[in-house]
Amino acid sequence: MSKKQYELELKVRDYECDLQGIVNNSVYQNYYEHTRHEYMKDVLKLDFAKLHEENIDPIVYRIEIDYKLSLRSGDVFMSKLKMEYEGLLKIVFFQEIFRKKDNKLVSKAKVIAVTLKNGRPVKPAVIMPNLTQ
Amino acid sequence: MSKKQYELELKVRDYECDLQGIVNNSVYQNYYEHTRHEYMKDVLKLDFAKLHEENIDPIVYRIEIDYKLSLRSGDVFMSKLKMEYEGLLKIVFFQEIFRKKDNKLVSKAKVIAVTLKNGRPVKPAVIMPNLTQ
Amino acid sequence: MSKKQYELELKVRDYECDLQGIVNNSVYQNYYEHTRHEYMKDVLKLDFAKLHEENIDPIVYRIEIDYKLSLRSGDVFMSKLKMEYEGLLKIVFFQEIFRKKDNKLVSKAKVIAVTLKNGRPVKPAVIMPNLTQ
Amino acid sequence: MSKKQYELELKVRDYECDLQGIVNNSVYQNYYEHTRHEYMKDVLKLDFAKLHEENIDPIVYRIEIDYKLSLRSGDVFMSKLKMEYEGLLKIVFFQEIFRKKDNKLVSKAKVIAVTLKNGRPVKPAVIMPNLTQ
Repeated sequence: MSKKQYELELKVRDYECDLQGIVNNSVYQNYYEHTRHEYMKDVLKLDFAKLHEENIDPIVYRIEIDYKLSLRSGDVFMSKLKMEYEGLLKIVFFQEIFRKKDNKLVSKAKVIAVTLKNGRPVKPAVIMPNLTQ
Repeated sequence: MSKKQYELELKVRDYECDLQGIVNNSVYQNYYEHTRHEYMKDVLKLDFAKLHEENIDPIVYRIEIDYKLSLRSGDVFMSKLKMEYEGLLKIVFFQEIFRKKDNKLVSKAKVIAVTLKNGRPVKPAVIMPNLTQ
Repeated sequence: MSKKQYELELKVRDYECDLQGIVNNSVYQNYYEHTRHEYMKDVLKLDFAKLHEENIDPIVYRIEIDYKLSLRSGDVFMSKLKMEYEGLLKIVFFQEIFRKKDNKLVSKAKVIAVTLKNGRPVKPAVIMPNLTQ
Repeated sequence: MSKKQYELELKVRDYECDLQGIVNNSVYQNYYEHTRHEYMKDVLKLDFAKLHEENIDPIVYRIEIDYKLSLRSGDVFMSKLKMEYEGLLKIVFFQEIFRKKDNKLVSKAKVIAVTLKNGRPVKPAVIMPNLTQ
């Protein structure tokens, strides 16, 4: 797999902000998930909804998120992603969010996923034959 | 069907509030949906997730919501529901939300739903044989 | 005010879909709100978050939503908006969502809003001096 | 501060489930946040919304979440919390979610928070005078 970085430009929506006037912590998981799914679809040609219909479900196993700055109403940001394998079964996503106006790091995450087929872990290569590890 | 009113006590969660410091408008649809599903499960003995696995999907067709007061952080509220049939295919839910501390009306909604089986409308009685209209 | 239609292109995010595999009803209110706020910022030069800091809050008073089709994972859609005045105090937004691939109407909404300043209704023109009614 | 464990019983709401039919990963952050805020209000007598009005904002600095099992529609769960100090400025929440029907661990989290007053870190004791560290 190429380690080329994937990048998505997104914009804060007002309903994502909470009573502190900043994007709620949980919403970053939405941003991170959306970026992973867009990456899977665009680059890996894997459709998350179609995989589910075939009883194949990539599942997040562990997530670590650091919050550095707060996104606010109107902020545009770049959501960046790199994917790596760890061992035979795990996929690790390194993700970062940068505020566009000053290119400052807002948040970063390490997301460890495994792929389940009929509820049992399978090697990622099984479902991603178009990839060479 | 009995026209007895169904009632659920719920509490605002801080992440449901937006930058105006009040519960976001869209969250009332979450409250209303949750109340309908709990009513279906508790009173009608219908499980929304199980129905979906049998290709039966109650679908909201139209919703009208009036907003009278704003719920805020910490507010406890009563979510009330009555169900009626309209014609052969439609089910109408009349729903209201009252703030508990002063029993004031916060919001009310009229929700019209139809039931789809394999994508086509069916009479509600088909899936609710334990009900007499 | 010009009655020119405002238009925003958006894409379904997988986390917006519920266990029926379709975008949850409440999420359309998110789409509709985001479109109104973008319209306010882009066309009317009004910043929702900044208005709130000045104790000015546009508030949704009533919303009517019709659901015609269901958006699904991967769908791109156009969110369209027209704004009109109704009487002295009300602003009405007519909103529609069209699925991009076949231009079919997915949902439409009528949203009635009032503007509160320090908790009391004010004429929209007060906060939008750059508009001629 | 007492290290007594705080506990909250909650129930999955259908709109929290995604197209995989399970509670979406990001929703656990909502559960965890709600439990922290209820703990703050019930045990520490601290109101998150009121603190914000005084320019005091507890902020999540880092979160680590492990996902062991998936919650599904209808599941009832216990959300448990313990709080500890780390150094002078950090508060650490150890949180766990157990499925009620079989008492199995669903997810656990370590949440590190700091308290900002007018944007600068302050000792937690400053805002929690009723606590002895």
